[in-house]
Amino acid sequence: MEAIKIIKVGGDIIDDAVKLEEFLTLFSNIKSPKVLVHGGGKSATELATKMNVPVQMIGGRRITDSANLEIITMLYAGKINKNIVARLQALNCNAIGMSGADGNTIVAHKRSVEDINFGFVGDINFVNTASLKLFLKNGMVPVFCAITHNELGQLLNTNADTIASELAIALAKEFRISLYYCFEKEGVLENIKDGSTVIKKLNTNTYLQLIEKGVIVGGMLPKLENSFRAVNNQVVKVCIGNPAMLIGSNVNYTTIER
Amino acid sequence: MEAIKIIKVGGDIIDDAVKLEEFLTLFSNIKSPKVLVHGGGKSATELATKMNVPVQMIGGRRITDSANLEIITMLYAGKINKNIVARLQALNCNAIGMSGADGNTIVAHKRSVEDINFGFVGDINFVNTASLKLFLKNGMVPVFCAITHNELGQLLNTNADTIASELAIALAKEFRISLYYCFEKEGVLENIKDGSTVIKKLNTNTYLQLIEKGVIVGGMLPKLENSFRAVNNQVVKVCIGNPAMLIGSNVNYTTIER
Repeated sequence: MEAIKIIKVGGDIIDDAVKLEEFLTLFSNIKSPKVLVHGGGKSATELATKMNVPVQMIGGRRITDSANLEIITMLYAGKINKNIVARLQALNCNAIGMSGADGNTIVAHKRSVEDINFGFVGDINFVNTASLKLFLKNGMVPVFCAITHNELGQLLNTNADTIASELAIALAKEFRISLYYCFEKEGVLENIKDGSTVIKKLNTNTYLQLIEKGVIVGGMLPKLENSFRAVNNQVVKVCIGNPAMLIGSNVNYTTIER
Repeated sequence: MEAIKIIKVGGDIIDDAVKLEEFLTLFSNIKSPKVLVHGGGKSATELATKMNVPVQMIGGRRITDSANLEIITMLYAGKINKNIVARLQALNCNAIGMSGADGNTIVAHKRSVEDINFGFVGDINFVNTASLKLFLKNGMVPVFCAITHNELGQLLNTNADTIASELAIALAKEFRISLYYCFEKEGVLENIKDGSTVIKKLNTNTYLQLIEKGVIVGGMLPKLENSFRAVNNQVVKVCIGNPAMLIGSNVNYTTIER
C-alpha cells in the first residue's frame, strides 16, 4: 500500500442522483486504496425548512446551532453516508461509513468565538491514522461525512474540503497521497461563466495574482487554501475538476502546484 | 479474544438522556471485547409527525415505506448512532458506528409480500464476521443501528433484537458469546404490572407454558424467540434485564436456558 487516493465529492453531485451514481461507479473502479469524503449539498437547508428550524447565515456562512447540528448529523452521517455506502457495496466496493468520531479518526475543537459564534463548528486538531490504515490495509474503503468530534462527546460540523486535505496531510507522512476535489465544473475557471477557461496549473504565485484580479472568489477560496496546504505538506498531487479526471481520460482539470 | 459480549440496548433507554448516559458508562467499563446494538425508541414516529410523513401500522407493526426508511436512516444511523459513538469516545471506548451496509457486515433481503407488504423491512440472510473480527481484535467497539442492506444498494429497516441475536450466532462459531438484552425492566415478568415478579430462569418448556397462560405477549415475544434461537445456536449465555445486570451486581434478571 504505497499510493492512496483521497477523493472529495461536492454537494452539487450529491444532490443529483444520476450524477452521484456516475461518480460512485467511477470511484469504485479506482484500483488503488482510496478514501471518500462527501459534502452535504443543499439538503440541510431543505430539511431545516421542512422542520421549521431557522437557518442563520452570517457573511454567507451557516451558523450551526444545536437544532441545525442535529439536522446535519441526520443527513450527512445518516441518509447521505449510508446510501453512498450501500451503493458502493452494490458496486463491489467494501465501503465503511465514518464520521470523525468513529474510530476517533478526526479530533476537532469548537471554533472559538471571536466576532461571530459559529456554533457547533469544528476546527480540526489532528487525524488519528491508526484505524484508517487498518481499514485500507484490509481492503476497506472509508467514506467520511463532514462531521468530527471533540473527544468530550460533542459532534461538530466540519468543512468537507478541510477534512479531505487534513486526511491527505496526515496520511502523507507514510504514503504517496493524491487528493482530488470533484465537483461539477472542469476545474478552476479563469472566467466563471465560461467552462472552457479551465486553469490547468495553479501555483501560489498565480493563485495570489488571480485573487487580486478577483477571479477566485467565494467557495473556491477555502478549497484552494486547503489544496495549497496539502501540496505544502507532502501531498504529491492535488487536482480540482469533475469526476472524469479520476479515470485520467482526455479531460481538463486544474492541478495545484507548490 | 475468547469471550465477546453482544449487548442490545432498547429504545426506552435510548429515549432518556440520563438513562442512556448511565448505560453507556456501564457499557464502556466492560473489560472484554464487546458489540453494541441499539434500537431507535419513539423518535422515528415523532420525526415523521414533525415532517408530516404518515406512519402506517398494521397489527402493531410499522410499515416502512421509502419516506419512513429515510427518517429511520437519518435517526438510527445518523443522530442516535453518532451521538452514542461520540459519548463512548468520551468514555475512552473506541466505538465505530455501523449499519449492516458498512463493511458489508449484515446482508438481508426485503421481506417478501404475503398478506402484508411491510415495505423496506429486511430479514437477515447472513452476517459477515471478517470486518467485525478485525475491529474487535484491534480494540474497536462496533456500535450497530438497526439497518441492514441487500448488497444491491437498498438499505433495509431490521429489528434490533434480531440483529443482536444474528451477530451473536455468527460469532458463536468461533468465540464464547454472551448476549444481553437491556431495557428498563428487570427481566421477563410473571406479572407485567409487578416489577418484583422477575422470572429468573426460562427454558423452552416454561416459555411455551407462559405463552399459553398469556403471560408473555407483545414485544417480549420476538425478543424471546431471538433469545431461544441464540441459545440453540451455540451462544453460551442470554440474559434479559436492566443494564445493572452488566456489572453482575446483586440484581434480578432473566437467564434464558435451552
